[in-house]
Amino acid sequence: MTGFRLTPLAASLPSTVPFVGPETQERQNGRPFRARLGANESVFGPSPKAIAAMEAAARDIWKYGDSSSHDLRHALAEAHGVAPENVLVGEGIDGILGNLVRLTVTTGDHVVTSDGAYPTFNYHVAGFGGTLHKVPYVNDHEDPESLFAKAAELGAKLVYLANPDNPMGTWHAGDTLKRMIDAHLPEGCLLVLDEAYIEFAPEGTAPDIDPNDTRVIRTRTFSKIHGMAGARVGYAIGAPELIQAFDKVRNHFGMNRAAQDGALAALMDRDYVAETREKVAHARGRIAAIAQAHGLSALPSATNFVAVDMGGDGALAQRFLKELNARGVFIRMPGVAPLNRCVRISCGRDEDLDVLEAEFGPSLAAARQS
Amino acid sequence: MTGFRLTPLAASLPSTVPFVGPETQERQNGRPFRARLGANESVFGPSPKAIAAMEAAARDIWKYGDSSSHDLRHALAEAHGVAPENVLVGEGIDGILGNLVRLTVTTGDHVVTSDGAYPTFNYHVAGFGGTLHKVPYVNDHEDPESLFAKAAELGAKLVYLANPDNPMGTWHAGDTLKRMIDAHLPEGCLLVLDEAYIEFAPEGTAPDIDPNDTRVIRTRTFSKIHGMAGARVGYAIGAPELIQAFDKVRNHFGMNRAAQDGALAALMDRDYVAETREKVAHARGRIAAIAQAHGLSALPSATNFVAVDMGGDGALAQRFLKELNARGVFIRMPGVAPLNRCVRISCGRDEDLDVLEAEFGPSLAAARQS
Repeated sequence: MTGFRLTPLAASLPSTVPFVGPETQERQNGRPFRARLGANESVFGPSPKAIAAMEAAARDIWKYGDSSSHDLRHALAEAHGVAPENVLVGEGIDGILGNLVRLTVTTGDHVVTSDGAYPTFNYHVAGFGGTLHKVPYVNDHEDPESLFAKAAELGAKLVYLANPDNPMGTWHAGDTLKRMIDAHLPEGCLLVLDEAYIEFAPEGTAPDIDPNDTRVIRTRTFSKIHGMAGARVGYAIGAPELIQAFDKVRNHFGMNRAAQDGALAALMDRDYVAETREKVAHARGRIAAIAQAHGLSALPSATNFVAVDMGGDGALAQRFLKELNARGVFIRMPGVAPLNRCVRISCGRDEDLDVLEAEFGPSLAAARQS
Repeated sequence: MTGFRLTPLAASLPSTVPFVGPETQERQNGRPFRARLGANESVFGPSPKAIAAMEAAARDIWKYGDSSSHDLRHALAEAHGVAPENVLVGEGIDGILGNLVRLTVTTGDHVVTSDGAYPTFNYHVAGFGGTLHKVPYVNDHEDPESLFAKAAELGAKLVYLANPDNPMGTWHAGDTLKRMIDAHLPEGCLLVLDEAYIEFAPEGTAPDIDPNDTRVIRTRTFSKIHGMAGARVGYAIGAPELIQAFDKVRNHFGMNRAAQDGALAALMDRDYVAETREKVAHARGRIAAIAQAHGLSALPSATNFVAVDMGGDGALAQRFLKELNARGVFIRMPGVAPLNRCVRISCGRDEDLDVLEAEFGPSLAAARQS
């Protein structure tokens, strides 16, 4: 008998890792990547004001962070025109999703998502004993109609929808989504509307939803347009009674203090956000052009990455990814068919895309030959 | 009907906060504290090398942290003479305790701790549906004998023991603990040995336990002697099969990247650790002297705080704490009798203790009068 006994649920879970990190791959490869374009990080970095705020906070790191993230929460509320009671700050969207699933899902509960959508959400659902149901993408878009229909059929507790979508980069207009929600989101089912990439999307992509609507929780992050993935700051907007429920389970002193300061500075630097948005739009165009130069097409994207259709099956895309990886370019790809005919390339600086451009052709040739 | 439905367990939990943070109190008071001596933070700050590492990491915060905390984990393994497979890095001890309870405790499971010991552990046990049992302190010490006896009686999954103890600062010799574990820790019960303060304790306080022993998991932190509470870096040492089980549930990309770098630099700066240990010893002596000057006695402490016996009941200590708070000194106190005859004062710099010294007498007089 061992000294510890796992719960039956924990014992049944695999010790898997949702994603292998680039550092792990670099250790395996024996050298660093020349271009880091796989995790939808913002290679353009955080605002200089956020950097300065984090540097300044380093010597005060002996203090625990503010357990209520008061200043950041209030600033976010103001920026979004909602009340502070509508805003939850947490350790990245990943951390928030974990607590959200914990609050709502237990063994026997049903959850609906799209087949190929965010694996970390699925990881949390499995981790709390939920039963996950997947509906297919339609034309490379997550499909609210079938998501909500499946949720209604099952009496699901949660339905997950990312808009814009990851890993395909596609999106729905806010008005369309709003109509779908009003017409088809079943009662008692919470829509987890993941808007991690919303700042890259065209005006009107975010649906106009009453922040006090108890049927929807939106998740946002400082990991993408704000360039602070390593800081671990995400937030959610939702009805006060749902936001407050997180106080039942969250790690109250879990926020890094310097990250709180950095996020506040990043939020205030609107010019830098606009600059990053432009750089990302430029990079999307360049990635599409690189694909096109090789006779391939890129999907339209409202995010900081581009899905490139490799024009074959998942095995071809997988080989291409490995070839590119071996040549020093870190990218990732969707996990399931038919999405996995594509690879997913994060936007980078021109110097990153120069490496991509140089290695794209040789990698493609090698992938096609093997 | 609301749009979300909590699990029965979540619905039953209170939206409480284990501790009110000092920033919240400062906002309530309308002014900052003059001395921050309530959260057992290290007012002496982190190593200059850790500060430099975190400053240098700020501009790279666009990258997610290494999901395996490889470098830090390996350095910790070397420092402790164990294998990397024995080491888990996590978001502070609080985060690690949450995941540990999640892995081992579900509704109907029993857990044993001491009445007055770390509230955040209790919060996690309640949060995962465990039934918590408390045994009394004996002479202001946690009592391994009664803890283990109660665990045996109940078939408990976990038993929690902090050595040195928080909030009293008392400790057991490692040999004593080792004997107790070997003789009395029941089979199938995991000992959570919280050693957050071990670096402040006399040589020989850490029991000599085989790191592969599946009956014990030890938790350590960069929040105390390393002065990095706001960074959120804790670690655990335990049997590989238990450490690996955390991969089933942990937030794989949950670590702040700058914090990983800072912790590694802090770990390497042994001189700074030794300096802090001396400053803390000096401060403990001064806090005891301040108490003594007012006819009160301080408990011996192997930590970075001192429990001062206010010589009355919990109500007196509570009044004293409030008076001190109103005069700009943040301290905390134990939550239950008979421990709550004491207040808990964290070690500070001389300038912090000057404020404490000046306000101690007036606060005591006011507390005794009201």
